[in-house]
Amino acid sequence: MYELIKGLPSTHGDDYPLNTTTLIRHAARTSPEQEIAYRTADGGWDRYTYRDAYERIVRSANVLRGLGVAPGDVVGVIDWNSRRFFELYWSIPGIAAVMLQMNLRLGQEDLGFVMRHSNTSWVLVDESLLSVAEGLAAENPDVRWIVMSDRPLSEIETTLPNPLHYEDLLAVANREIDWPMIEESSAYSACYTTGTTGRPKGVYYSHRGIYLHTLTMVAELGMSAHDSVLLLTPMFHGSCWGLPQAAVQARAKVVLPGRYAADNLGPIVDAMIAEGVTVGNGAPAIFGPMLDYIRTLEIRPDLSRARFLSGATEPPLSMMRGYAELTGADIIHAYGATETTPLVTVNRGIKPSLTDRPEEERWDRKRCQGVMVTGVDIRLVDAEDNDLPFDGAAQGELLLRGPWITSSYHSLNEPERFLDGYWRSGDVATIDEYGYVKVVDRIKDVIKSGGEWISSIDMENALTSHPRVREAAIIGVAHPKWQERPLALIVTTDGVEVPLAELHELLAPAFAKWQLPERALFLDSLDRTSVGKLDKKVMRAKFADTYGGA
Amino acid sequence: MYELIKGLPSTHGDDYPLNTTTLIRHAARTSPEQEIAYRTADGGWDRYTYRDAYERIVRSANVLRGLGVAPGDVVGVIDWNSRRFFELYWSIPGIAAVMLQMNLRLGQEDLGFVMRHSNTSWVLVDESLLSVAEGLAAENPDVRWIVMSDRPLSEIETTLPNPLHYEDLLAVANREIDWPMIEESSAYSACYTTGTTGRPKGVYYSHRGIYLHTLTMVAELGMSAHDSVLLLTPMFHGSCWGLPQAAVQARAKVVLPGRYAADNLGPIVDAMIAEGVTVGNGAPAIFGPMLDYIRTLEIRPDLSRARFLSGATEPPLSMMRGYAELTGADIIHAYGATETTPLVTVNRGIKPSLTDRPEEERWDRKRCQGVMVTGVDIRLVDAEDNDLPFDGAAQGELLLRGPWITSSYHSLNEPERFLDGYWRSGDVATIDEYGYVKVVDRIKDVIKSGGEWISSIDMENALTSHPRVREAAIIGVAHPKWQERPLALIVTTDGVEVPLAELHELLAPAFAKWQLPERALFLDSLDRTSVGKLDKKVMRAKFADTYGGA
Repeated sequence: MYELIKGLPSTHGDDYPLNTTTLIRHAARTSPEQEIAYRTADGGWDRYTYRDAYERIVRSANVLRGLGVAPGDVVGVIDWNSRRFFELYWSIPGIAAVMLQMNLRLGQEDLGFVMRHSNTSWVLVDESLLSVAEGLAAENPDVRWIVMSDRPLSEIETTLPNPLHYEDLLAVANREIDWPMIEESSAYSACYTTGTTGRPKGVYYSHRGIYLHTLTMVAELGMSAHDSVLLLTPMFHGSCWGLPQAAVQARAKVVLPGRYAADNLGPIVDAMIAEGVTVGNGAPAIFGPMLDYIRTLEIRPDLSRARFLSGATEPPLSMMRGYAELTGADIIHAYGATETTPLVTVNRGIKPSLTDRPEEERWDRKRCQGVMVTGVDIRLVDAEDNDLPFDGAAQGELLLRGPWITSSYHSLNEPERFLDGYWRSGDVATIDEYGYVKVVDRIKDVIKSGGEWISSIDMENALTSHPRVREAAIIGVAHPKWQERPLALIVTTDGVEVPLAELHELLAPAFAKWQLPERALFLDSLDRTSVGKLDKKVMRAKFADTYGGA
Repeated sequence: MYELIKGLPSTHGDDYPLNTTTLIRHAARTSPEQEIAYRTADGGWDRYTYRDAYERIVRSANVLRGLGVAPGDVVGVIDWNSRRFFELYWSIPGIAAVMLQMNLRLGQEDLGFVMRHSNTSWVLVDESLLSVAEGLAAENPDVRWIVMSDRPLSEIETTLPNPLHYEDLLAVANREIDWPMIEESSAYSACYTTGTTGRPKGVYYSHRGIYLHTLTMVAELGMSAHDSVLLLTPMFHGSCWGLPQAAVQARAKVVLPGRYAADNLGPIVDAMIAEGVTVGNGAPAIFGPMLDYIRTLEIRPDLSRARFLSGATEPPLSMMRGYAELTGADIIHAYGATETTPLVTVNRGIKPSLTDRPEEERWDRKRCQGVMVTGVDIRLVDAEDNDLPFDGAAQGELLLRGPWITSSYHSLNEPERFLDGYWRSGDVATIDEYGYVKVVDRIKDVIKSGGEWISSIDMENALTSHPRVREAAIIGVAHPKWQERPLALIVTTDGVEVPLAELHELLAPAFAKWQLPERALFLDSLDRTSVGKLDKKVMRAKFADTYGGA
């Protein structure tokens, strides 16, 4: 990997470890009055303070210790974005145990696998999600269960074996604690990735990685005690992008919406306005419908201080403009993955030197993944792992390394996912002279034609700008002469085909002639994975013979 | 000290070290076009970019390596706040050598001691400071010298033995480098403290400490690429408070004024306005005269985005109000010491929950040292080292610990300056329920009267609010019954005494009757140290017999 050079010893207290307890304790000490607003089980809103939350966190840690949870033990959580989950973000890691973020979208078989693979000993489950837990309990008889509810245990019907009641335990717990000093490379939490193939793979975040990620996020987003932070993405997923920790470091207000936005759109937008939200996270799939809802409001909300982190896919220009014009909110495209904690790039505003560029260029820059953040070591490599220049033109796979980038998967040997300590992102991108990263494809979806790469994402975006094209996928199909050629798969709004020449005309300004697909097939729907992503693997198999290739 | 608890191993790349090369390389990669403005030897201004600076930093590192500077070697710098010093901030530590910050205000004897104690092998000296170097060369024959100047060596007269010329070396240096990965506890730079007694003591900052301090400073001050950062305090002193590194992390514009503000007031204020400065550091002794200069300007400058970090002493209310009203600038009281890198507290704005407090309380809060920052572990202890509550009333010594707090002095055994890994600040303070720290005295100056402490700083500030009191010192003098009693030493503007009763009346609202000094002596001047601080040790000796004590 590399040689580590030792200089002269410093006189700094270098054995003082970085851990998340430092963050929550400091926030409770310096901003005890700061508010946390949360949605209650009955759909209403309530609020408490950092002082109250910290006091419950201390008791929660004492409860877990009292149950025998020891350093290194894994404790799972099945919950929405609730105040209890927020408290567990600190109490479980605070006693050097590992918080397992249990993905509600995984099937029962995969969730059971995750519990066994991580050797989970206790699981805390919200009353509304008991059915998930009950499905898992039968096949995992050694796991102990704790039910989280505002109602007494006697009123709760469940088939869970001998469940405990979280609030009952909290009520009698010690209110003082002597937090342990935790060695910083210890695991803080575990999140399993949801690959399209194979079993979920475990990423175990360290206290050190989380601490550095938190400070970097606060610095990059300019967060402070004047912010109000809405946690929109699931708290089981990549630590909610590290936003709960960043909010606490900044001593910002925290807004916890309970169930996710898809089921909850109106109340969440209403709360967003009422709580003066200035920072939130999500994806176009949720920010889009939220904008539609905002358009129906009689009074236009002023969200001009808001920065909404948007991930997953490139935010549509119309959506970004819509937020800017209607509310003043800034949609900030950010890029990362479960394996990267996730912050790798952030697209916050336009840097001073570029503010006088033409509007189109500025929007093009705003839409891309953004500028790499300090602390992530990025390489761009070609198919033979040779380094490529950061010139805005060369396309290569992004390789990532740093304190919050995974360098292995838990109890798995997957050398093909790493190179010299760098994690292979699987994303093909360009990086320009200002550090802007633009992801152009997944490496498995890129079309290898005549020794060159054709990336599919931009082409798909261009095709869907046609008024009658609802969905489009570009896939690589075997070709006897060119190895692979692109094939367009299209769903139209009216079921009527668009002539190929018209599609080519649409693509002509942005693509070379040799890159254009020779054929387009018109379908009723495109194949998607269980989480709604295009399933190009299935489509490639289905249409493998189109060009008569091998 | 404490037991370090190990949890489960994480999958993060925890061997990826924190070092300062990460910061400058990242800034040069993502903001190559960002400007650095600097004062030239002839008093004019010039500018270059991060790209240019980084290219010179690479060459500088190659020059030093070529001269045989190895990891762990100490390289001294004697310079003003110049672009060359800025470059050396990165090139020396970048090759795992240690940058010795040579304090121009130390006498020749002390500077010579520092060079020998640190085993300095090379010193880079600016042409305008050759006399300092020449004075040191004779007694340090093993040290090699490099002259920094825009003029060729042939035009420079010096008695230095075989000096090299920095720009000549740079001109032929390699422009490519493979930076070493530096073990993060390695020393980045060394700064020797200037105690009033004894030899200077060495604090050796680590790469880890500097990296964490940098991120924390950027987060606490909300710094970004839209900032323009003026480095006012000497770059030889506590790494210029870590502001150069913070500016680079934020990819802000950097403004380097060359010689310090005292010799340079007009040009610096003019540049501050011209360069749109938004962040700067200094002390009331320099911000005061700058405000006087601003008052003479025909056009009021708009500094409403500016946050000026002010250290050393509590900023006078009139000065803070003056900046706010005349320019919109925010004077931010910050607290720290050479031993703390220095950031311990920052007084940035008023937190949201306190904005509706009465104006007087808000200014009182703004004047104090501010709120402790994340990552510094603070204790408040009484004379027997028992912990005191953070209730805004209990006065105790501040003890500090954390990644950027020194936990020893280089090659010295001084156990009395540390307690269980905490550094004894020597400052007596209160901490309130919101984390606001208010320093009320130096522990050696606090007056021990009848088992209670009387702190002198507030009393001195109250006395100088009298229109005819120019300077005041309160010292503890031995007393036969009460152990010590306070004595007021006063310099009036007109040389005429103020009746004691009138002084008591002034103090009555804020102090208990038993705390008031029984006597006031009127003097022509107060004793001060070489750096202008009140020398209470001398005054205590001079007036030891005033109350007829032991």
